[in-house]
Amino acid sequence: MSGNGRERGGEGVSLEFLAGLAGGQARDGEGLRVSGLRPFDEAGPFEITAAVNASYLSRLDETRAGALIVPVGADTRGRPALVSPNPYLAFAKITAHFHPPPRPYSGISHAAVIGKEFACGADPGIAPAVVIGNKVTVGDRCLLYPGVVVGDGVVLGDDVRIYPNVSVLERSKIGNRVIIHAGAVIGSDGFGQAPDGTGYFKIPHTGTVQIDDDVEIGANNTIDRGTFGRTWIQRGVKTDNLVHVAHNVTVGEDTLLVAQTGISGSATIGRHAVMAGQSGCVGHITIGDNAVVIAQAGVGQSVPPGEVVSGTPAMPHRQWLKVQSIVARLPELRKKLLDLERRLKRLEGKGDGHGS
Amino acid sequence: MSGNGRERGGEGVSLEFLAGLAGGQARDGEGLRVSGLRPFDEAGPFEITAAVNASYLSRLDETRAGALIVPVGADTRGRPALVSPNPYLAFAKITAHFHPPPRPYSGISHAAVIGKEFACGADPGIAPAVVIGNKVTVGDRCLLYPGVVVGDGVVLGDDVRIYPNVSVLERSKIGNRVIIHAGAVIGSDGFGQAPDGTGYFKIPHTGTVQIDDDVEIGANNTIDRGTFGRTWIQRGVKTDNLVHVAHNVTVGEDTLLVAQTGISGSATIGRHAVMAGQSGCVGHITIGDNAVVIAQAGVGQSVPPGEVVSGTPAMPHRQWLKVQSIVARLPELRKKLLDLERRLKRLEGKGDGHGS
Amino acid sequence: MSGNGRERGGEGVSLEFLAGLAGGQARDGEGLRVSGLRPFDEAGPFEITAAVNASYLSRLDETRAGALIVPVGADTRGRPALVSPNPYLAFAKITAHFHPPPRPYSGISHAAVIGKEFACGADPGIAPAVVIGNKVTVGDRCLLYPGVVVGDGVVLGDDVRIYPNVSVLERSKIGNRVIIHAGAVIGSDGFGQAPDGTGYFKIPHTGTVQIDDDVEIGANNTIDRGTFGRTWIQRGVKTDNLVHVAHNVTVGEDTLLVAQTGISGSATIGRHAVMAGQSGCVGHITIGDNAVVIAQAGVGQSVPPGEVVSGTPAMPHRQWLKVQSIVARLPELRKKLLDLERRLKRLEGKGDGHGS
Repeated sequence: MSGNGRERGGEGVSLEFLAGLAGGQARDGEGLRVSGLRPFDEAGPFEITAAVNASYLSRLDETRAGALIVPVGADTRGRPALVSPNPYLAFAKITAHFHPPPRPYSGISHAAVIGKEFACGADPGIAPAVVIGNKVTVGDRCLLYPGVVVGDGVVLGDDVRIYPNVSVLERSKIGNRVIIHAGAVIGSDGFGQAPDGTGYFKIPHTGTVQIDDDVEIGANNTIDRGTFGRTWIQRGVKTDNLVHVAHNVTVGEDTLLVAQTGISGSATIGRHAVMAGQSGCVGHITIGDNAVVIAQAGVGQSVPPGEVVSGTPAMPHRQWLKVQSIVARLPELRKKLLDLERRLKRLEGKGDGHGS
Repeated sequence: MSGNGRERGGEGVSLEFLAGLAGGQARDGEGLRVSGLRPFDEAGPFEITAAVNASYLSRLDETRAGALIVPVGADTRGRPALVSPNPYLAFAKITAHFHPPPRPYSGISHAAVIGKEFACGADPGIAPAVVIGNKVTVGDRCLLYPGVVVGDGVVLGDDVRIYPNVSVLERSKIGNRVIIHAGAVIGSDGFGQAPDGTGYFKIPHTGTVQIDDDVEIGANNTIDRGTFGRTWIQRGVKTDNLVHVAHNVTVGEDTLLVAQTGISGSATIGRHAVMAGQSGCVGHITIGDNAVVIAQAGVGQSVPPGEVVSGTPAMPHRQWLKVQSIVARLPELRKKLLDLERRLKRLEGKGDGHGS
Repeated sequence: MSGNGRERGGEGVSLEFLAGLAGGQARDGEGLRVSGLRPFDEAGPFEITAAVNASYLSRLDETRAGALIVPVGADTRGRPALVSPNPYLAFAKITAHFHPPPRPYSGISHAAVIGKEFACGADPGIAPAVVIGNKVTVGDRCLLYPGVVVGDGVVLGDDVRIYPNVSVLERSKIGNRVIIHAGAVIGSDGFGQAPDGTGYFKIPHTGTVQIDDDVEIGANNTIDRGTFGRTWIQRGVKTDNLVHVAHNVTVGEDTLLVAQTGISGSATIGRHAVMAGQSGCVGHITIGDNAVVIAQAGVGQSVPPGEVVSGTPAMPHRQWLKVQSIVARLPELRKKLLDLERRLKRLEGKGDGHGS
């Protein structure tokens, strides 16, 4: 749509429509039909673009865009604008309007393998080379890409999208509007090994994984099932790629797990927290609501709600910043210390001289 | 079984039977039939539960469990108990008894693709969408989930379980009772690139991967083949998820590699060692038997047997603990140093005064 | 070939031929036919082996090899030798000659699923359980292993090899001679989430991934597509296993990304740079040409061309080495500081005595 409409706009929508969709106010755009959204330097006269920060706002002359998504208070010099208190969100919503996710499969492919007692909702898109076990329940409008394997007794909600080569193992429960990116593994056994004196005896993992509504799981994640009970990814959690979540972990609502993060067994992560890239935490601790674990931090004990922590072992981020600024100057501090020692020695010599 | 038997127990086993199985002594449980194992707060009168630490032992009144797995010396006030010197191991073994791993496939699916000269043992479970190359040998009772790809000339032992979407590349040798979790890659090329002045020329990897008996490989692991020779995962090794093992590495018997660990090329890890989560080591070094690499440590040189190391660059863990406790107080130490400097200057001034 | 030819050599090639192939000079090998390449301790009289460093060169008596790959200036005491200014490269090239990569599939398998408007080059090798979407273009001699999923509109160049269970999502563009190892994901959505006050709204990712000629992507990598525009892996880049490349990243020509490295969104990595194992960088920065990021480093700001950086936060490697040598001795420095403080106090006491 954006391709053809770029220079015509005939099939587009009004700026008011987009403002209603995205949350904001249309300004100076009467009669304009917007037919797509494109980057600042590429958008044409029937497209909208985002100018959300000072660097774009200072060079509005340079875009041919027919309309601008701008923050409240921005001067657009009479150009059509969608003024939003959260222009980044407005941008995301308008992008989603013009670029609905692709839906390359519809119906159930003859080249998929479906088990017994399959309860399938309306309008499925089940690709070739999908393999679904027995007693699986799938909600409406689910889309399963090729190579997806769904184990026995799995339940998927409505509007679930599962990308290629994902493995969802037996009895996992997946909520509505969940997205699972390619190669992820849901429901692998936890890493539980009981020492038997010489080696290890595998602890069976009889629990499950529960993923609630509106969760997005990144590519090549591994989410282990509970030993007993469940590993629980709550509503609205978003994980980036290559994230590891161990058995019996709970991740609270709207929490972000950035790429290559690892969470050890039975840890509890609060709501609206962030674990940044390559961070990790030990098991059996709690990371509080709204806490932030900075990239590469290694969390060895519980983190209070709202705390920001850095480093290995993790400490409050402010302290870490101070500490690191000194660490970088340690060679200089050491010199100073050795200098002081020399000078003190001299003084002590003199002092002795005085005293003798 | 546990479901129906929970309140009846009729089909259960005796506590003596479980004690024999798990290693321990049955006490006060004459006539009891145990039909399942469940968590402390959920177990019913015909189920056994684990009460392995003080926190559970102090509230034995609160479980309805018909029998308790307890450590030697625990006072169970006359309740049926399985007393074990290693109650965690007993718990694991009894769990395994009541929850044998699922076996959702039997026979060779018509929707699997099997190459030439396939030597298949007794009682296979080869799922739909499995693809097996030529000259593959598979032992008895092997279970291959959907999406498993087995390359030419691969050999699997008996009782091997390979979960969905695992790739086992050509000529890999897998021992008996090996478990490979979903998405793992066995036998990818090592990362060998010969600089040619401007870029790199790929070094062919003609070696193999050998995985010995009783190894468990975690989800989405990557185990590279040898350049020449083999990458060798010895008996009893257990790896967690997202672990990377480079070409020509040897991992010794009963060693644990925790999640997101990375081992560089030609490193040798000893027996019964532990590399904790997100740790890594450079290539061509040796980590000794029984050594422990603490989480996130970066090992740059060989580690003696039995040593525990932390940090990047890794140092003995005791030293690291001391160092880190000081690092956290560096701002305070720096202040003290600057204070000393001021005071010394003053003294030097005075000294000069005296001396002049 | 190497097997049969080991003791005969009849079908082999001349040392001159290999010298031409590998770049170097044949010496003392007239009439010799070389039929394979094997390790130093295993090679036989019709095989060539590499003796590229002092440890091998000092024990040339111990190999039965018929010819030696050696550096310029090495004394081979009259034994047939291929003398090369870059013997490691020569070794790689000769290995590649004797061990061309396997090609287990030819033609298009009946058990592959091919979409509409498939433009397939000459001599494909498309395995069973490959699923190719619509409007896909594939160059000559491409090899797609089982479980490979290729999305709509993907373009592959000539001589591309894609190992099992790789997902190449819609509209990705892959150049010539690209190798993608098993389990990798190309074109997953970037991790873009717009906060909406309570949770997050998914930012659609409408961009693509472009991978240029001669790139090698490691097993279980995740390469996200651009939000708009592209994520761009330029010619000659080699990535190790479990590497994460976020949306809109550019990785410059001939750069190496070692295992478990993570690159955040919109970062630009220069040409011929190295990011060593488990290193990471934040988004929107530039790592210059020829820069080296040492293993486990966390890069928080741009790195100039040619710089070598270590640590978290990353600093110049030389500084980091100094700093770390002091960090390890912090307990001792702290003692010295406390000692100085005590001695200073004593002096101050004396001084007061003098001054009173």
